Amino acid sequence: MTTTPLGTAQSPPAPGTVRVDAAALLAFTASVFTGRGLPPHRAERAARALCHGDLAGPRSHGLANLTRLYLPLLDEGRADPAAEPRVLTDLGASVLWDARRALGLWAAGAAMDLAAERAERHGIGLVSVRGATHLGCAGHHALRAAERGMVGLVASNCGRQRIARPPGAAVAMLGTNPISLAAPAGAHPPFLLDMSTTAAPTGVVRQAAREGRPLPEGLLRDEVGAPVTDPRALDEGRAHLEWLGGEVGRYKGFGLALMVEVLSALVSGSGTGPHPDAHGGDGGRDDDIGFLVAAIAPDTLRQGTGADAEALFGALVDCPPVDPAEPVRYPGWYEYHRARERRRDGVPLEGAVYAELVDVASRAGLRAPTALEGP
Amino acid sequence: MTTTPLGTAQSPPAPGTVRVDAAALLAFTASVFTGRGLPPHRAERAARALCHGDLAGPRSHGLANLTRLYLPLLDEGRADPAAEPRVLTDLGASVLWDARRALGLWAAGAAMDLAAERAERHGIGLVSVRGATHLGCAGHHALRAAERGMVGLVASNCGRQRIARPPGAAVAMLGTNPISLAAPAGAHPPFLLDMSTTAAPTGVVRQAAREGRPLPEGLLRDEVGAPVTDPRALDEGRAHLEWLGGEVGRYKGFGLALMVEVLSALVSGSGTGPHPDAHGGDGGRDDDIGFLVAAIAPDTLRQGTGADAEALFGALVDCPPVDPAEPVRYPGWYEYHRARERRRDGVPLEGAVYAELVDVASRAGLRAPTALEGP
Repeated sequence: MTTTPLGTAQSPPAPGTVRVDAAALLAFTASVFTGRGLPPHRAERAARALCHGDLAGPRSHGLANLTRLYLPLLDEGRADPAAEPRVLTDLGASVLWDARRALGLWAAGAAMDLAAERAERHGIGLVSVRGATHLGCAGHHALRAAERGMVGLVASNCGRQRIARPPGAAVAMLGTNPISLAAPAGAHPPFLLDMSTTAAPTGVVRQAAREGRPLPEGLLRDEVGAPVTDPRALDEGRAHLEWLGGEVGRYKGFGLALMVEVLSALVSGSGTGPHPDAHGGDGGRDDDIGFLVAAIAPDTLRQGTGADAEALFGALVDCPPVDPAEPVRYPGWYEYHRARERRRDGVPLEGAVYAELVDVASRAGLRAPTALEGP
Repeated sequence: MTTTPLGTAQSPPAPGTVRVDAAALLAFTASVFTGRGLPPHRAERAARALCHGDLAGPRSHGLANLTRLYLPLLDEGRADPAAEPRVLTDLGASVLWDARRALGLWAAGAAMDLAAERAERHGIGLVSVRGATHLGCAGHHALRAAERGMVGLVASNCGRQRIARPPGAAVAMLGTNPISLAAPAGAHPPFLLDMSTTAAPTGVVRQAAREGRPLPEGLLRDEVGAPVTDPRALDEGRAHLEWLGGEVGRYKGFGLALMVEVLSALVSGSGTGPHPDAHGGDGGRDDDIGFLVAAIAPDTLRQGTGADAEALFGALVDCPPVDPAEPVRYPGWYEYHRARERRRDGVPLEGAVYAELVDVASRAGLRAPTALEGP
């Protein structure tokens, strides 16, 4: 959920935060991945994808997931660091891959690069992927297309993992099913929508639980539909995720999650949340994830898209605001400026996350990135 | 917004409702369009697209719009009944059209048919359209792909019309920007998401105003952000549309609207809501609409998609419900059953809408469809 105004780039670091040089953080993360068997080029790309959460936001999808998600995936063999994705079908404009458990942090970007190559010739390129693992922030991969002047779309299911309940259902049937779209905006920061189709992704709920912060009403509900603000209730089974839209709109959020399930899993043949074996209510596992990446190259269809994009997004940031102190912005604007500042001034990490990196470094015989400031 | 549980197909007609034979209603509507200069084949297709709202739902997008939207468009020359869309670019998998003001009710379906033809060869087919007019229920056109075993996507902006305000903005910059996705579901009704990216489309608000019904909280807000339930407040300028997501999620709804604006208008070069000339706060007009239709043909990429789709959507309808009297359903399920019943038993029309059809018939020298029952 980078698509939330998380405060401007100028926010001071929270207490307990450790600030680390961005380049050092990327190099360290890449070395952790090479230590787990990823080829160096892949490790560098996977590190960029993971650190996108810490640089641009959301932090919940950044290095906090290294020890919680990616290292266990690799250490348990659920992700294969050196797997070569296999091309199952190639129709030119569209390609079907079996990712063979390659790390999603790398594979999604590689798929987007292929989609963009195909879009240069066909106007659109689509790469449908099965057998995938967690891709991190979908928006990071969508941005690869925007950097080439294209529109990038990423939709991913959560494999067989079931977290969210269809309206009226007594059991969970779907994941948080993120969707992302990125587009160039001329001289302005690229447009970047990156959102779960539930009201919040699990990462944001768990981040709040770690920080001991209550959630706003509207993200979690209990068995009888009442709002829950205690973030610990999700993993304790006392609450489940609400859909985007809440009371008046949850049927749309649920529909968007199914749209993502169709695009990512039905097209590719990956695992799916809804499955006849799933009625017992077990949560499944996020194995055999499916995702779809697509690039559209507007410049192959017509002239003037760069100027039009700049006019469109420029009109938004110049739009008269209700409060002159709070100018109108669009998804991607804050993320761009935040990342730029953090590349310059250092990346704030939660103290506990920094301690995890120090521990990972010590076990792997690596040097943790030096703290620029912090406790 | 067909993506709302509007009640089952078995709901009794509301008081004041007139029931009309479905085939007679379609034939009448087509004859109204041929009377306005549409070639017969186009008129028949436009009639099906318009009556989709009355058969499947939502009624707000059906024949209630004949005298409010489509006949004025044709009579004022803002839509051209016989315009031939011009192919501006053809890259095989992707095509750019200038619709030249052809009636969107017909042109969107024609674009989807072309996209589906291209998808048979390339796996994906995309038709990007500028110079378009209002296409009615986006879902009707997306379903054309599902009927061919494909996934259909439709995204449309509202041309230069500005109805909804970006978060924090003092003026409107975007339309209701609908998105629709349809997919086959084997022996089950096709999946059909069809939604505005605002909390509700204007049609639903105006339908409530005509019926004198208050709206639920969460669809409209006033200048200071307080909820408004009086549907007349929208057209009286006392309220504006909330985004999908409301208080905790509106940045996502806004982001989805921009995703639709990018896909429909930036790719095609149509009119856009956000524009440097738009800061005065005038609402613009829904001329030079842009839309994108795409078809993905999963069968060209892999085998077994039909069985997988049936298993996926079957698992949803068989999912244990909270209340055994309210089984779990998915978007498209109610719409399919409602349309099937209405084709068999007749289509309920609001008395006032039926009276408008009688008036249109009398002015055009046509016979209005006979009421099967009603006041």
